[in-house]
Amino acid sequence: MIMKQICPSADEILFAFMRDQDGVETAFHRLSAQEPKCGFGLQGVCCRLCTNGPCRITPKSPRGVCGADADTMVARNFLRAVAAGAACYLHVVENAAESLRTAAESGRPLKGTEVLAELAAALDIPEGDLHPRAAAVAGAVLNDLYLPRNRKMAMVEKLAYGPRLARWRELGLLPGGAKSEVFDALVKTSTNLSSDPMDMLIHALRLGIATGIYGLELTNLLNDILLGEPQLSTRPVGFGVVDPDYINIMVTGHQHALLGPVQEGLGEPWAVELAREAGAKGFRIVGCTCVGQDIQSRGGEVFAGHAGNNFTSEALLATGGIDLVISEFNCTLPGIEDICRRYRVAQICLDDVAKKQNADYLPFNPAEGDSIARQVARAAAENYRRRRDEVPVNVPGHGRSSSLAGFSERNLRAFLGGHYQPLIDLIASGQLKGLAAIVGCSNLTAGGHDVFTAGLTRELIRRDILVLSAGCTSGGLENLGFMSPEAVEWAGERLQKVCRELNIPPVLNFGPCLGIGRLEMVAAGIAAALQVDLPRLPLVLSAPQWLEEQALADGAFGLALGLPLHLAQPPFITGSGLVTRVLTEDMEKLTGGRVIVEGEIGAAAEKLEQVIQQRRSALGI
Amino acid sequence: MIMKQICPSADEILFAFMRDQDGVETAFHRLSAQEPKCGFGLQGVCCRLCTNGPCRITPKSPRGVCGADADTMVARNFLRAVAAGAACYLHVVENAAESLRTAAESGRPLKGTEVLAELAAALDIPEGDLHPRAAAVAGAVLNDLYLPRNRKMAMVEKLAYGPRLARWRELGLLPGGAKSEVFDALVKTSTNLSSDPMDMLIHALRLGIATGIYGLELTNLLNDILLGEPQLSTRPVGFGVVDPDYINIMVTGHQHALLGPVQEGLGEPWAVELAREAGAKGFRIVGCTCVGQDIQSRGGEVFAGHAGNNFTSEALLATGGIDLVISEFNCTLPGIEDICRRYRVAQICLDDVAKKQNADYLPFNPAEGDSIARQVARAAAENYRRRRDEVPVNVPGHGRSSSLAGFSERNLRAFLGGHYQPLIDLIASGQLKGLAAIVGCSNLTAGGHDVFTAGLTRELIRRDILVLSAGCTSGGLENLGFMSPEAVEWAGERLQKVCRELNIPPVLNFGPCLGIGRLEMVAAGIAAALQVDLPRLPLVLSAPQWLEEQALADGAFGLALGLPLHLAQPPFITGSGLVTRVLTEDMEKLTGGRVIVEGEIGAAAEKLEQVIQQRRSALGI
Repeated sequence: MIMKQICPSADEILFAFMRDQDGVETAFHRLSAQEPKCGFGLQGVCCRLCTNGPCRITPKSPRGVCGADADTMVARNFLRAVAAGAACYLHVVENAAESLRTAAESGRPLKGTEVLAELAAALDIPEGDLHPRAAAVAGAVLNDLYLPRNRKMAMVEKLAYGPRLARWRELGLLPGGAKSEVFDALVKTSTNLSSDPMDMLIHALRLGIATGIYGLELTNLLNDILLGEPQLSTRPVGFGVVDPDYINIMVTGHQHALLGPVQEGLGEPWAVELAREAGAKGFRIVGCTCVGQDIQSRGGEVFAGHAGNNFTSEALLATGGIDLVISEFNCTLPGIEDICRRYRVAQICLDDVAKKQNADYLPFNPAEGDSIARQVARAAAENYRRRRDEVPVNVPGHGRSSSLAGFSERNLRAFLGGHYQPLIDLIASGQLKGLAAIVGCSNLTAGGHDVFTAGLTRELIRRDILVLSAGCTSGGLENLGFMSPEAVEWAGERLQKVCRELNIPPVLNFGPCLGIGRLEMVAAGIAAALQVDLPRLPLVLSAPQWLEEQALADGAFGLALGLPLHLAQPPFITGSGLVTRVLTEDMEKLTGGRVIVEGEIGAAAEKLEQVIQQRRSALGI
Repeated sequence: MIMKQICPSADEILFAFMRDQDGVETAFHRLSAQEPKCGFGLQGVCCRLCTNGPCRITPKSPRGVCGADADTMVARNFLRAVAAGAACYLHVVENAAESLRTAAESGRPLKGTEVLAELAAALDIPEGDLHPRAAAVAGAVLNDLYLPRNRKMAMVEKLAYGPRLARWRELGLLPGGAKSEVFDALVKTSTNLSSDPMDMLIHALRLGIATGIYGLELTNLLNDILLGEPQLSTRPVGFGVVDPDYINIMVTGHQHALLGPVQEGLGEPWAVELAREAGAKGFRIVGCTCVGQDIQSRGGEVFAGHAGNNFTSEALLATGGIDLVISEFNCTLPGIEDICRRYRVAQICLDDVAKKQNADYLPFNPAEGDSIARQVARAAAENYRRRRDEVPVNVPGHGRSSSLAGFSERNLRAFLGGHYQPLIDLIASGQLKGLAAIVGCSNLTAGGHDVFTAGLTRELIRRDILVLSAGCTSGGLENLGFMSPEAVEWAGERLQKVCRELNIPPVLNFGPCLGIGRLEMVAAGIAAALQVDLPRLPLVLSAPQWLEEQALADGAFGLALGLPLHLAQPPFITGSGLVTRVLTEDMEKLTGGRVIVEGEIGAAAEKLEQVIQQRRSALGI
């Protein structure tokens, strides 16, 4: 057998498992076949917008046929990518709002009444009965999303942190209707339309704000109202959560609101009955990708635990322990389809934007949650019967038996005693040097799967910086033990002491990438308590292994918030001196934020610590 | 001096002029520097969606890192391009509707009362006063555009040709809210979302329908109500329309509604006064790109004439005769900026989606048309003063003194006596073999600027096929004389006779690319008179030198309508066997339409004639 070169992972058991599955091709195997990469694409200086092209910028062809130079080309590609990423998050908040509205209008139980009260008050929605109030909140979100671009979204004014709002207003960054901002970005980046790089970068910031306040923050809050708030709890994580005695349904995507009815249904007596008839003990939902993190944070009976992040999904299917994949959004790799075929795993998609070629499409409708749950259960049970005698189950000992999850902006504050002062005191006294939000995806190129994320996190906690994580970073870090008690040992002395006193690990799990919105609410809460603007906090943001266009939209929010944003790899912008300079330098004068590209783990930790130290000094602590 | 290799043009005077302008770089000069082209980009098998990439499909790497194969990658790139193209047209109809609504609400004169009556009746808007009715029409368009995707747009049902509507319903092609269809296409084509090529191609057809009915047909009708219907008239065309005694304002873009107030203002006494103070006889609008065609079709006092299509704009500026460029949409090449600098031409953009880097941005607001006109006039007059003594004017003898323009679906019918029967009779009797719509852009790669368009048109009229043109094809063909009396000689014997009898040239000018919507209304009118569905008509569609993503959205409408659509160059799809087969073969079973790729002029004419002959036989004529 010829050993193909496969991509490393910080997760050695996962790596060994993949290496040993004969004939199973995963992203880890395909990576090397994609070398060498296109230098034009990497630098963003390739344009495929018209039949005079594709054009590429080189020293002997400094302009495309139309006359676009590297700056225009890069800005155009970048804005279009940010727009697509923003669109993804805005799609998610729209579905969450639709789900909440439907639930509210049909009088179904709403689990997050305190969040509703807080949010409705912030939005000036008059006090009143629970359900009409929830419907009004959801309606107000939908209304803002659908405004034309020349009308500013109302909630930005109501939810953004005051000093930021003022700065955004000064800079002309307040977004019009979010869907129209995306739409017009797409128009703007079309052939022979905008050629103004600065205007396009400003547009990207507006999209970042829309993404952050709606796609991130409000999605969480709406889901909290509908599905309940995150709860701190310790749970097992990793492939070990797969119990072959159950019918196992793996979830991938980002829309907990769409999976809520399925999760609820699978715990009901009819479902247990159905599973038993098929010869299983019941149904289990196995978390994978961010929606797994979301379910993990809120818990629930049939949830087996979170198995892993984006690039573990192919391996998880190759355990043979999964009977059906239900997907509803991104991070559902096309590569799973072949593995599903091989291991006879059924596939159902709930949202056509994420339709897999061989999957059944079951259009989600919030009014028909029960019927969807029943169809999913029947399909899973049927497939369980069909496959289990034929397909061996081989689940490696993997993951951790106890990992702390479920942090949110509200329960962190509650955990601290109802306000951020104790955390501020720890920072002011130097017990904690500062805070680092390590967020976003995993990719296979920043050292390998989770390699940079894990390395950077280890470096930062060693330097007494408390790490908060949201996204596939959480899924990776928890499988590596960073949210388990043993991780306390890996922290610096002072952080160790804090962890022991508070009984927390050195990395706090804020769940899915949507949780980035929670972190940003935490940051605003701390800033408010300190009465400073966000760029003055001893807090850094890193999306070390960012993967997707969505991460760019997240990042644009981070920049709008004025945060220093570390990336191990630059976006595809390095072909433009102007765009690179604006994002990595000039932006600081505009919003206070900037991109820090550093591809070496130690150097990245050093730079982030330096930023924290500078901000500490500036605050006089 | 080293002669750079410059791209040929069917327009020899234009070519010679560009060749002789020392030191002026145009798209014609840059083309050769972009050789060789990227084969991956040309085939659509390059993906830049994530940091694991860019990925490229090759025999040794048949999948991207995520597992996407060539079919998924190509379909994703294609759908995103169609979505961008659709977005551009929908942006245009939105602005047209906003302009009409504002004019109607403020009681300003509306020039197209018959169109309003006809359209309002089709939309079941109750009879009543002119202005409220126009506002209701505009409001209904805007309402449809902003519907969510799960609600079908109302006007499709009301405006589409009956048998087509039925087929679209069968195929699930009726679009939901147009802006949401675009938005979700962007989501769908993001990293690790859809991997289903067929679903993506179906989505492209839905976008095509939204583009066609709203972006094309309704834009024309709304503009007709606001600005007046096209009028048949003969006018001079080409660079010769530039009169150095006037302050010349070149227009580029696609939104006549945005330029209407400027055009109106420039004819008023205050403007004439202003121009005289600056030493000129007055202001003149010089048409360039499609918005010039649109103004040409409706006429108006200060309009000098249409100078040329997309790739003539750089040369037009290099005549030195232009004092200011006002642009509001696409086909405004980035390359004009350097030439504007060299020839000291001022630039104003009215729409930020088309912002040029060095242009002044004057945001269009339909309520402030007069103020915008005054600002434009002042800027142009000031620049005229500043530059005319410094910059030599060198306008070549170019174009035609008399070219027939201004065809529309309504005035063609009126010209024929109020119904299509005379045209049908000419076809049935064999006097005309059939109809060919030669539409869309010009590019520099199908033989050179306008080379394929002119060659194919010549071949078709020689075969007694009447050509209808809309888009940059019109701008090119009119400068070459195809809409002038002399062109009759170039037609086949039978078509010559028809032309002489009706006193028309063998190519009918339907104006800008928006006029494609008019052609499709003509086709539906003929089909209705014949009581057949569109795919049975002896009519072919060709966008021989299509350039942009917008052309792909047009093309998707053509396919949805069931028309055979010729392209000299394929879209960037050839890397996928599946996508290529669906678009060029299988589509015929779905909608009746299909793409015919043929890059040789004679062979293309042959194939199109063959389609016409087959359809004639099937109709028994």
